[in-house]
Amino acid sequence: MSQLYDSTFFKTTKLFELTDRIFLLSCGATMLSFDAVTGAPKGGSAVRGRAEAYIAAEAFKIAVSDEMRAAIEELEALENLDAITAAAVRQARREYDSRCKIPVHIMREFSELTTEANHVWEDAKVANDFKAFAPYLARIIDYNKTFIDYRGYTGVPYNTLLDDYELGMTTDKLDIFFGTLKNTIVPLLKRITEAEQIDDSFVTRYVPKDKQKAISELLMNKLGYDRNRGQLRESAHPFTTGFGSAETRITTHYYDQSFFYSMYSVIHETGHALYELGKMPEIASTMLDDGVSMGVHESQSRFYENVIGRSRAFWELIYDELIAILGDEWKGIPVESFYRAANKAEPSFIRTEADELTYSLHIMVRYEIEKAIFAGGVSVDELPELWNAKYKEYLGITPPTDTVGVLQDTHWSGGSFGYFPSYSLGNAYAAQILNTMNKEIDLEALIRADKISEITTWLGEKIHKFGKIKPPAQLFTDFTGEDLNAEHYVKYLNNKFEGLYNLK
Amino acid sequence: MSQLYDSTFFKTTKLFELTDRIFLLSCGATMLSFDAVTGAPKGGSAVRGRAEAYIAAEAFKIAVSDEMRAAIEELEALENLDAITAAAVRQARREYDSRCKIPVHIMREFSELTTEANHVWEDAKVANDFKAFAPYLARIIDYNKTFIDYRGYTGVPYNTLLDDYELGMTTDKLDIFFGTLKNTIVPLLKRITEAEQIDDSFVTRYVPKDKQKAISELLMNKLGYDRNRGQLRESAHPFTTGFGSAETRITTHYYDQSFFYSMYSVIHETGHALYELGKMPEIASTMLDDGVSMGVHESQSRFYENVIGRSRAFWELIYDELIAILGDEWKGIPVESFYRAANKAEPSFIRTEADELTYSLHIMVRYEIEKAIFAGGVSVDELPELWNAKYKEYLGITPPTDTVGVLQDTHWSGGSFGYFPSYSLGNAYAAQILNTMNKEIDLEALIRADKISEITTWLGEKIHKFGKIKPPAQLFTDFTGEDLNAEHYVKYLNNKFEGLYNLK
Repeated sequence: MSQLYDSTFFKTTKLFELTDRIFLLSCGATMLSFDAVTGAPKGGSAVRGRAEAYIAAEAFKIAVSDEMRAAIEELEALENLDAITAAAVRQARREYDSRCKIPVHIMREFSELTTEANHVWEDAKVANDFKAFAPYLARIIDYNKTFIDYRGYTGVPYNTLLDDYELGMTTDKLDIFFGTLKNTIVPLLKRITEAEQIDDSFVTRYVPKDKQKAISELLMNKLGYDRNRGQLRESAHPFTTGFGSAETRITTHYYDQSFFYSMYSVIHETGHALYELGKMPEIASTMLDDGVSMGVHESQSRFYENVIGRSRAFWELIYDELIAILGDEWKGIPVESFYRAANKAEPSFIRTEADELTYSLHIMVRYEIEKAIFAGGVSVDELPELWNAKYKEYLGITPPTDTVGVLQDTHWSGGSFGYFPSYSLGNAYAAQILNTMNKEIDLEALIRADKISEITTWLGEKIHKFGKIKPPAQLFTDFTGEDLNAEHYVKYLNNKFEGLYNLK
Repeated sequence: MSQLYDSTFFKTTKLFELTDRIFLLSCGATMLSFDAVTGAPKGGSAVRGRAEAYIAAEAFKIAVSDEMRAAIEELEALENLDAITAAAVRQARREYDSRCKIPVHIMREFSELTTEANHVWEDAKVANDFKAFAPYLARIIDYNKTFIDYRGYTGVPYNTLLDDYELGMTTDKLDIFFGTLKNTIVPLLKRITEAEQIDDSFVTRYVPKDKQKAISELLMNKLGYDRNRGQLRESAHPFTTGFGSAETRITTHYYDQSFFYSMYSVIHETGHALYELGKMPEIASTMLDDGVSMGVHESQSRFYENVIGRSRAFWELIYDELIAILGDEWKGIPVESFYRAANKAEPSFIRTEADELTYSLHIMVRYEIEKAIFAGGVSVDELPELWNAKYKEYLGITPPTDTVGVLQDTHWSGGSFGYFPSYSLGNAYAAQILNTMNKEIDLEALIRADKISEITTWLGEKIHKFGKIKPPAQLFTDFTGEDLNAEHYVKYLNNKFEGLYNLK
């Protein structure tokens, strides 16, 4: 199979040489950035931050150089390129254009603005003061509109931003997608809130850090995370980073009274890491040694977190060892209670703490607002009210403050629009993957038999190994027979939550 | 005082701009290198190593560029430079010449040779097979002779290598220096071996890692190591690294049955870190934000390790808290026993495990052998025999194998000759510092009063703050009234060990 993918020619090209230099510089920047959030002393942060910015800027210089343009054009002029070189050229062109179409001084202004805006947003969030943040948000939106002017768009302006995170994504596709989700999840959630609730009171019991760390080890072992090419560290917010298939690390955070938090963040980030580590050797350390899109990356983390990690089979797999770590006082809680607690669904204000069912509703609110912003249909001042109205409509609750409402996410203050839908796409892709997987292997049986690595091998053959070689739509069409289809996701949700809440 | 040192002009120069770029790139390389030995997964080491080498090579390109030469020449042409700019130009010229006088292809050959030689040496050491390593060592020596040919020398060829680690050091000075040491230490050690021995049997008692870590914290607190600009991590071999006065980190290694090992390595590395962190703000993050020489750096680590850390006053200071950490079963060991055990002197084969008294004898063996090599007076094949003869003569013991003899150190396989004397210079400088310090402040009283920070402040004013502004000889002459003088060191040793072993 891998014979189809040969990187011999690509490695002789100027494009490879230039992108390799970018990669090596990026490794230095990545390491400085990883170190900064995994326990570095505060005192040196200014110097280390300056070094990280300088090294990243050196990489950027290569990325926007005339040499790079020439290297891309040289390959674009050739016919019958092999699959790896062709994918690399496509990707390089995409990145070059997105970097070069906007004048450097405007990018610098924007970067300074978002740095400042991020500080203002942090304070505004604490103070529940949307008005303080509003003028910054308005300027960030204006800059994004300017970027779209420079870059052009197909259909509606917002599409250009969506495409940055998910190649080929449009509001037309997302309207259908979220429409399908809305029609299922909103009524399903209503039925759940009226049903008998799941008792998950034990999940806030005190679990000391050393026990939670032992649980992390157990989970990484069960999932088959190769600790020779990765490791778990601690940071304020969990994330995945590294050097592609050569090495990918993850982090988590431990809260004494929320051991589910570290459990599910470890599983989630391990999902990201398994994707990174599963790529074919032909593309190792090249520009294709990366996830193909935000949405597909999120599909892998969510697959491990929700489809595997929140399954009854997984809870049965880990139960005995988990209890051995937690201690005798946990023996009275049956495995079914853990399974049900891990799947409890209820309306809530904070996206990052939302359950599997309601998560996409939080995203839908953001998608609809972003779409309206870039269609010119809403002003910044109206956002809090619009936000709260949508939470009321979809989740049935009204945020008591902007702190837990429109001010909760960091994305907008950092300048990112078009990013949020990736999260929901990830969930939907995961269900679509499951639908195909069920025809070929027995997921539940493999989990029960402690053979999750065979599931990973399957995902590796269909998704992981390709890195950025195939665009998302082609990747999914090739193995599921169709492009993104939200029907699998809503079926999965209906089936799972009707069972959990005895709604049938 | 600091008004004398103004970096305003220097920061406007091209030399500053170029060296700042080198500094920022080096931060990336430093971070990759630090990460690699403090717990990184093995799988990614090839990629991370390639990134580190690339980033270091980018820094090297700037260092040997025509731009750099022009920037140095431009400042050399100016008169009445301020002290900071003058020191920077001197240092830049020194570094530029040492890098540019040798053709790049020869440096590359040498680098490849030492990489291979290091692997061969590792195996040869394990196998006690000097013959396997000998041809590599011979070639490394030949390269060093070639380097001296390119760079020239004053007096004898070996002086050029000595000067790399200690500006202005020569065999003339070192012959006097080691002659003084030999005349004192060899007979003193002989009297000690004939005296009643110190009982240190308790130092191999099992002490679990968490207790040793608590001891590390205690020691760093007592020494005043600012953990906002530094931190302790773990590695196979202890070392100090970082980003100058902005942030300097240390490492140690924990052995279950040798808690003195982590104790004294933490104190030693903290000494290095306090030097790095104590520099004046005017030179922060510049090319002068570094220790002035290997010998002076070692004088600081040894001052904290031996003069402070092995004093009776220090043991009295930490005793109660140490016992509280170690546990009740240690209460029977009086503070005097700890003090004496920490100062036990006896002949041994391994330099890195040698005590304060015999350490310089190990160095003397290496100095005399290196001197003979570069004077053409000894062939590689003769080294094991020569090594063993000198150990017999100075330490009274004959290494049973080359593994614990001539093969023990990594320095030669890495291509470093002229480095070893720095260790002994550090010890001698430390005693010379103490001699002056005793005239101005009461070291012992300050330790007992838990005011070691006042000792650090004193060292800061005399040494730390200057970084690389003053060459070692000037630095010491300015505050001790004389250049390196071994008399203070031998007096210190005689006094201390005659007391410890009741030899008077």
